[in-house]
Amino acid sequence: MCIEARKEKNVIYLSMDYPEKKNGLDLKMATSLLKNVRQANQDPDIHSIVFESKHRAFFSSGPRPEDLLTCVGEEGIRYLEQVLEVLNQCVLAIFCSPKVTVALINGFAYGGGFNIMLACDRRISLQRAKFLENFHQMGISPDLGASYLIPRLIGYEKTFDMLINGEIFTAEQALQLGLIHEIAANKQELYEKLEQYLKKVAEGHPPAIAATKKLLKERAARELEKQLEVETRYLLDLFKQEEIKHRLQVLV
Amino acid sequence: MCIEARKEKNVIYLSMDYPEKKNGLDLKMATSLLKNVRQANQDPDIHSIVFESKHRAFFSSGPRPEDLLTCVGEEGIRYLEQVLEVLNQCVLAIFCSPKVTVALINGFAYGGGFNIMLACDRRISLQRAKFLENFHQMGISPDLGASYLIPRLIGYEKTFDMLINGEIFTAEQALQLGLIHEIAANKQELYEKLEQYLKKVAEGHPPAIAATKKLLKERAARELEKQLEVETRYLLDLFKQEEIKHRLQVLV
Amino acid sequence: MCIEARKEKNVIYLSMDYPEKKNGLDLKMATSLLKNVRQANQDPDIHSIVFESKHRAFFSSGPRPEDLLTCVGEEGIRYLEQVLEVLNQCVLAIFCSPKVTVALINGFAYGGGFNIMLACDRRISLQRAKFLENFHQMGISPDLGASYLIPRLIGYEKTFDMLINGEIFTAEQALQLGLIHEIAANKQELYEKLEQYLKKVAEGHPPAIAATKKLLKERAARELEKQLEVETRYLLDLFKQEEIKHRLQVLV
Repeated sequence: MCIEARKEKNVIYLSMDYPEKKNGLDLKMATSLLKNVRQANQDPDIHSIVFESKHRAFFSSGPRPEDLLTCVGEEGIRYLEQVLEVLNQCVLAIFCSPKVTVALINGFAYGGGFNIMLACDRRISLQRAKFLENFHQMGISPDLGASYLIPRLIGYEKTFDMLINGEIFTAEQALQLGLIHEIAANKQELYEKLEQYLKKVAEGHPPAIAATKKLLKERAARELEKQLEVETRYLLDLFKQEEIKHRLQVLV
Repeated sequence: MCIEARKEKNVIYLSMDYPEKKNGLDLKMATSLLKNVRQANQDPDIHSIVFESKHRAFFSSGPRPEDLLTCVGEEGIRYLEQVLEVLNQCVLAIFCSPKVTVALINGFAYGGGFNIMLACDRRISLQRAKFLENFHQMGISPDLGASYLIPRLIGYEKTFDMLINGEIFTAEQALQLGLIHEIAANKQELYEKLEQYLKKVAEGHPPAIAATKKLLKERAARELEKQLEVETRYLLDLFKQEEIKHRLQVLV
Repeated sequence: MCIEARKEKNVIYLSMDYPEKKNGLDLKMATSLLKNVRQANQDPDIHSIVFESKHRAFFSSGPRPEDLLTCVGEEGIRYLEQVLEVLNQCVLAIFCSPKVTVALINGFAYGGGFNIMLACDRRISLQRAKFLENFHQMGISPDLGASYLIPRLIGYEKTFDMLINGEIFTAEQALQLGLIHEIAANKQELYEKLEQYLKKVAEGHPPAIAATKKLLKERAARELEKQLEVETRYLLDLFKQEEIKHRLQVLV
């Protein structure tokens, strides 16, 4: 399994543990993530889900260039479609979770690893974390909700700028942009900030929190669902082009 | 009557005067408010409506915990439904007003008293005013448009944060968040700022201002109307739970 | 022709050259603009379109009061409808362009000249540029997408404030508000900033950029299209009123 789940004081921690791919989002990880999120969403005993990484250096590297490279061409596209189907379900399961969802970003969060984090209600990041949306470099269009979740937070203008730039940015920049909520200097501080937040959440009445989330996110969830479909269609179309192959080869 | 209306230089001032409930939004206040707003909306001689409080300490305490307590259980819910029906109409009548609407927040604005203010075009607040959305504490979900009007102004993330926190915040914090437009040090300055704004409004052509407001708010008004219905449904559902009773009893 | 088009390194520059009307948006300019934008949108060799002015003092004065004055009354309204039809198509053709669109604002950008700029993906402005939305003064409601494009960037509250104020604002203020992306001290710096941006764009894969733009703007484009229709309806209605005539006469 790529995810280690543990329950502590009415909270489920989903700890990504897939070091051979730096918590990359391939079919194996996606399937494990989806199963765990869906289980947690239905657990009546918990009020929150926390996403974290078991590994110091990375949060998640998203779908990886070497995996994406195998998806160019007829047969590859069919496989890509399968992976995207599961990953899109992950994004929706997190975005629509009746539980409060928190991402603890300890290291780099790239592409899909970034978007999955954006589907959460709260993001607390280590100072040293790094972020990236490098669709531009790969010659492809945004996927896994990026084209919906980022503009929702920072507007069209800054989103397009970020995508055209396609450069790594720091936790400080992510905070300035409004992509994360808090920065912690070290791991201890990270978990203290989490504790503080979860304490506040725990004072609430879970069915009321679930209703509040639904009220605030229901229209967005419908739009996100449609957007995921369109994103997938555009991406599969681009994967028919040789140009993508050349661009991915440079990155592997 | 809970509202004192006066007309001055093409402006109607609706002054809330219901001290026994600290301008709380019960059925009596709601009915009076709705009648006055609808009248003002159709008055061809005015260009603006100003909401203010006749009492130094408070703007409006919203629906009050002691009143809400009587709404738990079968019979109470039917009554709550009636009150919400009128209050929702108030929010819509203010939000969709063809007149320019200004709220002068002199003292605390809590829950529904806060939301009614958010439906206005402009909010000028005294330094000492205090704000609160404490649904979280009461174990209920947002009503009277809160789940639409707040994210419209400050986005999902800050809204969810505010609702989960459920703590009193100051005029300074409200300004930082983007929930109010201006802060005045004292009552004189408050009315000077109002004067200045209304002078500018008065230079316009009222039918053009009404058309501008419609252009800017029509889609939002449709969404708000639907959201009010969903909010009400979720709230009535939560009022069937004993938990709400326990939480409200603590607050009375 | 009112537009001079030149192609340089996969970029089309559309340079407004209509000094007798200060690049004002009348039927002649609108027709020329629409033709050029549509041509550029379909040019497979380019990745970007840059809008600029051939004249030092002005970017575009929008539809001009003296022209608008001739549109009051029965016959005038039919003409106004024709002009708006073409101008609305311009706004849509720019907003929905598959190419990256940049506006270089060298001098004043008023009314429609401002909105056409807002439909672009990026706005770089000279320090000395000036901006204005003076519908309020003319007694009319916003057109050419203003009621959609401005709130999309800065929210309802600041938009309504700006429209009610109807005063000239500086490049610095536009940057603060989030209406432009960058300010350049002089013309050389302006083109250096453009160069830097276009270099980054050129590294991308044009079909992927077009797909990204579609993902980010498709829903907005549908809403903008509807909004343009409603704007036009409201505006034509207001042009039946004598009040508009009096207000325009003061401005000529």
